[in-house]
Order: sequence, then C-alpha cells, then structure tokens
Amino acid sequence: MPFYEKLKFNADGLIPAIVQDVTDGRVLMMAWMNKASLEKTLETHRTWFWSRSRQKFWMKGESSGHVQVVKSVSFDCDGDTLLIQVEQTGAACHEGFRSCFFRTVEEAGGSWKTTEERIDDPS
Amino acid sequence: MPFYEKLKFNADGLIPAIVQDVTDGRVLMMAWMNKASLEKTLETHRTWFWSRSRQKFWMKGESSGHVQVVKSVSFDCDGDTLLIQVEQTGAACHEGFRSCFFRTVEEAGGSWKTTEERIDDPS
Repeated sequence: MPFYEKLKFNADGLIPAIVQDVTDGRVLMMAWMNKASLEKTLETHRTWFWSRSRQKFWMKGESSGHVQVVKSVSFDCDGDTLLIQVEQTGAACHEGFRSCFFRTVEEAGGSWKTTEERIDDPS
Repeated sequence: MPFYEKLKFNADGLIPAIVQDVTDGRVLMMAWMNKASLEKTLETHRTWFWSRSRQKFWMKGESSGHVQVVKSVSFDCDGDTLLIQVEQTGAACHEGFRSCFFRTVEEAGGSWKTTEERIDDPS
C-alpha cells in the first residue's frame, strides 16, 4: 500500500510536519503540508509547505537561503503527523533562532524565558 | 506577559504538542492540548491531552503505565505549537513502539517500511 493511503489530511487537506535536525535531534519547527507539497518535498529533497495565511506553497529557505536538505520522512501510527529529518542551513526560525522553539515556560503560573541564542539577524 | 497570552489555540481551542524524549531527542508523538490540559500538564508534570475523537481529557500512560514525566515546555515563534520534553516510561506508541513515528517513506513513489522495533506487546 502506498504510504499516501495511510495518511489522514485534515478538512483543509493539510497535515502537520515536524522538522527535526538530523545531526543532533533538535526540533526546529512545525509547519503544514498538503499532498502536493509533500510530493514536492520527496521529489526535490527540500522542504515545501503550504502557507495557511498566504494560501500558497513555499520552500523553506527560498528567500533566506536557510534551506533544509531532507534526509528522511516518517509518519505516525495514526497517519496524521509527519516527522521530517533534515540538514538545516543557518537558522530555521524567521526570527533568527536556530529553532522556532526558543522560548521555554518557567512555571505553571506562566512566566517564560528565551532559552536559545539568536544565530542570525533576520533584518 | 504570561506565556498563555502568546499562544494561539485553533478554532477548536486546541494547540498541537510535540513530545520529545529528553534523553536522546527522539520525537515520540504529537497530540493536541487545550488550555486546561496544558495547565494540568504544567501543574502535575505529566502530559495531559484532549482527545478530539473521544472529546475527553487523557493522561498519557493512565491505562498503560507508560507515563511521561515533563521536563520542559517550550513554544514556537508563532505561538501555535508546543514542544514538550519528557522522560518516557516504556513505549510512547499505543502500538508498542517507542515512538509513534516508526514508519519511514522509502521513495517518492510511496513505499515505506517499519524502521523501529516493537518494544512492548500492546495486546
């Protein structure tokens, strides 16, 4: 059975894709794919997503140069989430951090702090 | 500003939570939280989710014993995804695999294979 038949896209035809750095396991970002962007990802070995706000395809790094070279694509038991391992060039986050998950909660009450250094000036 | 104000829950009041093993970075699963389950997660240091299909709260491991001890909770630049690092007891996947992402795509055409060993008999 082709793996596409195992996948469950949501009502908008999208599936969340977790992107992880293959070199050390850092989770870099999460973005949404549709079937066409997933096919393009597998064909080109670069990550292609569907922007829900802009309603268009985008390739990670197409403007910044911070591309992701795809090393593997996995999917979960329910078929409703993808895990993509990549080699990341530069910062994955458009705010200049290596990972988009640069803020960590400090306590149940709700304070948080930045737990990662900015590696790139996004301006 | 409390971090809750940074978060964007979707139209159903939910936010996806990526769960990662803090010991070696393996991505274990992705599930959905609402504000109450996130608060409970922060208070109890166990992962609580909202089941979209069953419309109820569930604690990971409440029936299997495969609990997740929460070590950190981070959120991304857009505030629409959580990354939770845990110490996992046993298999995270209800199918008996350590990680739910046990199937990997082999080629663009669509074949896939199981790339992880089952560590627990779910029956």
